[in-house]
Amino acid sequence: MRTGIKVFAPATVANVGVGFDILGFALNEPGDEIVARFEGESGLKIGKITGAKGKLPYEIEKNTAGVAAQALLDAIDYKGEGISLEIRKKMPFSSGLGSSAASAVAGVMAVNELLKRPFEKRDLLHFAALGESIASGSYHLDNVAPSLLGGMILIRDSKSLDVHRIHTPRGLHVVVVYPEVSIHTKDARSMLKETISLNQHIKQSGNLAGFITGLFTSDIDLIKRSLQDVIIEDQRSHLIPNFKEIQSAAMKNGALGCTISGAGPSIFALCQSTFIAKNVEDALSNIYSESKVNFKIYSSPINNDGAIKF
Amino acid sequence: MRTGIKVFAPATVANVGVGFDILGFALNEPGDEIVARFEGESGLKIGKITGAKGKLPYEIEKNTAGVAAQALLDAIDYKGEGISLEIRKKMPFSSGLGSSAASAVAGVMAVNELLKRPFEKRDLLHFAALGESIASGSYHLDNVAPSLLGGMILIRDSKSLDVHRIHTPRGLHVVVVYPEVSIHTKDARSMLKETISLNQHIKQSGNLAGFITGLFTSDIDLIKRSLQDVIIEDQRSHLIPNFKEIQSAAMKNGALGCTISGAGPSIFALCQSTFIAKNVEDALSNIYSESKVNFKIYSSPINNDGAIKF
Repeated sequence: MRTGIKVFAPATVANVGVGFDILGFALNEPGDEIVARFEGESGLKIGKITGAKGKLPYEIEKNTAGVAAQALLDAIDYKGEGISLEIRKKMPFSSGLGSSAASAVAGVMAVNELLKRPFEKRDLLHFAALGESIASGSYHLDNVAPSLLGGMILIRDSKSLDVHRIHTPRGLHVVVVYPEVSIHTKDARSMLKETISLNQHIKQSGNLAGFITGLFTSDIDLIKRSLQDVIIEDQRSHLIPNFKEIQSAAMKNGALGCTISGAGPSIFALCQSTFIAKNVEDALSNIYSESKVNFKIYSSPINNDGAIKF
Repeated sequence: MRTGIKVFAPATVANVGVGFDILGFALNEPGDEIVARFEGESGLKIGKITGAKGKLPYEIEKNTAGVAAQALLDAIDYKGEGISLEIRKKMPFSSGLGSSAASAVAGVMAVNELLKRPFEKRDLLHFAALGESIASGSYHLDNVAPSLLGGMILIRDSKSLDVHRIHTPRGLHVVVVYPEVSIHTKDARSMLKETISLNQHIKQSGNLAGFITGLFTSDIDLIKRSLQDVIIEDQRSHLIPNFKEIQSAAMKNGALGCTISGAGPSIFALCQSTFIAKNVEDALSNIYSESKVNFKIYSSPINNDGAIKF
């Protein structure tokens, strides 16, 4: 078997409390690995999947990584040697950490690298979003863009791929806890009210603008005052075990903010230092341990690299 | 009559399209002047009002400048010599340009200067907001804060005076046209729908975040793509003569965005240079001239000084 190209694409925290559908950032871990290698005479296939407990389809057109990679091959009208993907699933499904986005990103980037970069990294966004839409049911970039590009990403508009890196202060650290209950993005979305009050909009706008201003100016106190979601959190948090307790413990231990990651059930806590993050991590672990909730916990700076070949 | 202290407080554009109730910036003109001088044995009075065509009350407790100035005097438990204000109203009422805010700011700042600054400039915000609330019916800072402080101001939260200066790229220039029809803020507010769709919120959030990111990074194209109001404009623009025509002419002549200033009827067009602003100014003047709408037009960079003693 030929060696191939190995790519890692990181998990991501979408929405970030105040930026529903428009903000996301990347973590150092968890994430997915995909290996792409030349194999066979023609066509794309998924040769192997590990870590998915049989939950991921081998059919290209049903697999997020497959769809993303095929979209790239179609775009260049690829007629070369066959390509095989090996998917090493290393993160939980339906966790609110952009699992399907990470696979889509890793798949298309691995093929792009294997073919010696017919596209710039940023130009892979569209293909990855096509792949991710198979799982999520809609074309959106709030996980795909940060997983690919890294950093804190604003998605002004998905359709036109209008995405921008937002400066983040040095030292920010994130604790993410995933209680092992499953929430599907489609369900979590359909339960949201279709309207909000103008007052909620005004308050959330102030917080969103404050959060972004705080990031650009490294105003930690402003970030903290701003990181409060008055729209989505109340509608979804009852699906998440011990949510209020977790949030309260994170804040008591010095987090800048703590709310739902993506559609949940994962919860993220943004911290201004690794020291504070360690305290938060311990407090959150204790709560789920005592409540006998199975969970995984991750601690990471904001990942500014995004997907990488390694 | 003693000479006194003379203060100018500028007009302001609130809402700025994408930041309903949370963004505002200051203009170089128009604006209000207030002179404060010691006169009489004790107490605050309004000695003279010019330019108001009899529309402004002399009673301290009914006058925005009077209420603002009195609030400052109460805060320091002032027992000194009498103070008289002369209000030189130099901008239109109910125009959407923060007329009452400018008077409130000028009033309190003139008294603060006369008393040799018992307060820092920024600490006058609360007093000015109290004054402005007499006219607008609510305590909010989206005109008061930029008129006092200058620049592009984010009001994350009015009650806690959580306001922040947002960087703006060099060279930005604003054309403001005021068609002489009257819209009261209270009426313009009560006509707004109390709810919006979640999709409108998402789109406006993307635009707001894009606008702020564009300002911080001097990304003129991003500012242009972002400066689109999908919530308020449609609900209010029918009150404004030739609105669509004005907007379309501004955009055709190169404006970055053009929408309602504050509660209207004034319209602002943000431009990337004075050269473009001149073209926009001419085009807008032509439309109202041909439509026989009485109007005033102003052209100004973003005013970064705010209220000044002069």
